[in-house]
Amino acid sequence: MSEEMRPIGIALLGAGVVGSAVAKLLTEHHDELADRIGRDFRIVGVGVRDKTKSREHIDPSLITSDVQALAADPAVDVVIELIGGTDDAAVLVADALKSGRSVVTANKALIAREGTALHALAASHDADLYYEAAVAGAIPLLRPLRESFIGDRITKVLGIVNGTTNFILSSMTEHGTTYDTALAQAQALGYAEADPSADVLGLDSAAKATTLARLAFHSEVDSAKVSVQGITSVTAGDIAAAKAMGFVVKLLAVAELTPQDEIVVRVHPSLVPASHPLASVHDAFNAVFINAEAAGEVMFYGRGAGGTPTASAIIGDFVTVARNIVQGSRGHEVVAYRHLQTQTIGAARTRYYVNLQVADQPGVLASIANVFAQRGVSIQVVRQDGAGEDARIVLRTHEALDRDLDATVAALRTLPQVREVLGVMRVEGER
Amino acid sequence: MSEEMRPIGIALLGAGVVGSAVAKLLTEHHDELADRIGRDFRIVGVGVRDKTKSREHIDPSLITSDVQALAADPAVDVVIELIGGTDDAAVLVADALKSGRSVVTANKALIAREGTALHALAASHDADLYYEAAVAGAIPLLRPLRESFIGDRITKVLGIVNGTTNFILSSMTEHGTTYDTALAQAQALGYAEADPSADVLGLDSAAKATTLARLAFHSEVDSAKVSVQGITSVTAGDIAAAKAMGFVVKLLAVAELTPQDEIVVRVHPSLVPASHPLASVHDAFNAVFINAEAAGEVMFYGRGAGGTPTASAIIGDFVTVARNIVQGSRGHEVVAYRHLQTQTIGAARTRYYVNLQVADQPGVLASIANVFAQRGVSIQVVRQDGAGEDARIVLRTHEALDRDLDATVAALRTLPQVREVLGVMRVEGER
Repeated sequence: MSEEMRPIGIALLGAGVVGSAVAKLLTEHHDELADRIGRDFRIVGVGVRDKTKSREHIDPSLITSDVQALAADPAVDVVIELIGGTDDAAVLVADALKSGRSVVTANKALIAREGTALHALAASHDADLYYEAAVAGAIPLLRPLRESFIGDRITKVLGIVNGTTNFILSSMTEHGTTYDTALAQAQALGYAEADPSADVLGLDSAAKATTLARLAFHSEVDSAKVSVQGITSVTAGDIAAAKAMGFVVKLLAVAELTPQDEIVVRVHPSLVPASHPLASVHDAFNAVFINAEAAGEVMFYGRGAGGTPTASAIIGDFVTVARNIVQGSRGHEVVAYRHLQTQTIGAARTRYYVNLQVADQPGVLASIANVFAQRGVSIQVVRQDGAGEDARIVLRTHEALDRDLDATVAALRTLPQVREVLGVMRVEGER
Repeated sequence: MSEEMRPIGIALLGAGVVGSAVAKLLTEHHDELADRIGRDFRIVGVGVRDKTKSREHIDPSLITSDVQALAADPAVDVVIELIGGTDDAAVLVADALKSGRSVVTANKALIAREGTALHALAASHDADLYYEAAVAGAIPLLRPLRESFIGDRITKVLGIVNGTTNFILSSMTEHGTTYDTALAQAQALGYAEADPSADVLGLDSAAKATTLARLAFHSEVDSAKVSVQGITSVTAGDIAAAKAMGFVVKLLAVAELTPQDEIVVRVHPSLVPASHPLASVHDAFNAVFINAEAAGEVMFYGRGAGGTPTASAIIGDFVTVARNIVQGSRGHEVVAYRHLQTQTIGAARTRYYVNLQVADQPGVLASIANVFAQRGVSIQVVRQDGAGEDARIVLRTHEALDRDLDATVAALRTLPQVREVLGVMRVEGER
């Protein structure tokens, strides 16, 4: 067999839930995939940390703990990186690209942090870099962003991109449980890890939102300015109050352009109208809306996690990369040709829900309304409830600059008539 | 300027609603798109039938009625075909591909009929052929099918892909109007053409479903076996009966694989549960579900028609094709490498809703149930209503072979206890 026609060689790095599913599907669907690629392929080796562990669906003779040697094996053309983390993985991916090997990865943290540099590396070594599985699992989202919307101007990407937090919030909403109970349940069912910080603090969503922003706006994103608020302080009371108003609480990832063409990336719990499609995204499902000038609003919905759904995205990328190898070409470059500024959340236009415990005396609403008016924030709905110690004012604003809304809430905290600010949350999805 | 670096030349064939929107966006976003392509581009000419008509957004000096000469102009690298129909367009597209020019088209009828032949022509002349706008307008659907799901096995594609009929059915559902009234309203608002046949008879949906089937199942589709039923016989009574049961009526396009790996393509009005996401797809919006073995269920939703949304998809394809030209490559081949049989709808597994006017006498239900049982069709829900002349039995079945369901209904028509079969409709989307 000539060098050119040898099978395309794969180094599979990582054999956890996703890696095993990838190995299984590559094996079971081998002939069909080879037909689609137009050439044979084979797994050259599977790199793991613990060589002694037995692994279903993987030929034991393929397993090696010398991951670096495997990735550099001359028989390897494509490296599938499923190790995760940003230390070893960063070196392995960079080395593979430098050697002209193409890389498929599901590593959202790595791509969020080093995506631009890795794309440049891929371009200069004539290699491909694909990572559909790194955002929203099985949902084809990055390829439409990279290619389908390439003739349009995207203004906003907004969605639920973390299954763990969505499971916890769904469970709090449906069963009225506390955050701690819902988290424990998610851990028991395998939806949350023993250390759930990356998910519940919003860091996982923020990494995905950063990658979405970069692809949507063709610009590098300053990750220091990404605003991240997780769900750890969402209470059963917040969720009950939301429900009473016809809303549900969702952790949303938002990447948007301001009217001045500045990028804002933000992750925070949000009130979403119960009638909005995002409200019915349950458990570990993901859904993402893309707003583009010409296309209007487009929604994508599907499984955001799980070994087999994630493997679908990874194998889709592998076939694409393999077809490029057969064809002697590579995928279109992802170029950050616009050099847009990233702004903090203060520059975004948002709407607030504010829940205040107030003094039960005449003129309170007037004083409060005045605080909003002074900062140019318009109130959309206001409701006065209770009396005496429990007198409350609940309101939602129209859209305003987040920094003005924030300043308004700060001023409310110092207003003598306001006993306590019981809750503040941003509102998304109202039309 | 060297030959290689001259601007990429576009022949824009057609300057109707979509063509004008394409011309407008190509002009307004010229610099941005050139940045993304990595080379300058220009519209060499705009081919129209009537040269004397004045056209917004189009430089009059570009307009020509000699469409064939324009498409063959040496300065043209990419032909954007928006003429429609299958006569002139077929020749223009084939000639362009034969000359090595790449083609972007929104022509669903042409692609449904000649897609495989045109792809072969494109491949043998090293040209690209893209048609994202031909199915579901601005929704990125064909590219995910061609590329994102290429590592997976799609088993079913199901959705609303025709805005005109969806507008008519939405309007009948919301206002209780008759089909004729709703159609007249759709025509008045520009949602339906003066001759609405292609839409209301289901032919437009069938063309799109055929294209979806070909891409999803990697096989040619025998269009003679595609089952098409439009909405012309849907009555206000059908819609009211559906509503009473918690369903809405939608015209669905379905492309699926049977367990024997045979293709079935079918278009027909269907009952969809009111709680199903497809039920809330209103007016001219489209939504499509893709079921794949590994990815599970994925949904796409967005604008299915309109000049500007459709232009988004066309320009996305143009930029892709232009980048391929710059890169000296072409998109991955769409190969019908599987040679699957197409079966008529009889081979599909579906569920029926049946509404019968029956004799008001003991034992009627038993006789009817017997007719179902003899053909192996299991009844899911049955309701007896009314009395005397108006005695009715309404039932929904479990999933069964469509040909068995069809035979069951035929047998019911001859049963003495059945006075009349008032309604029969397939049910989709129940879980």
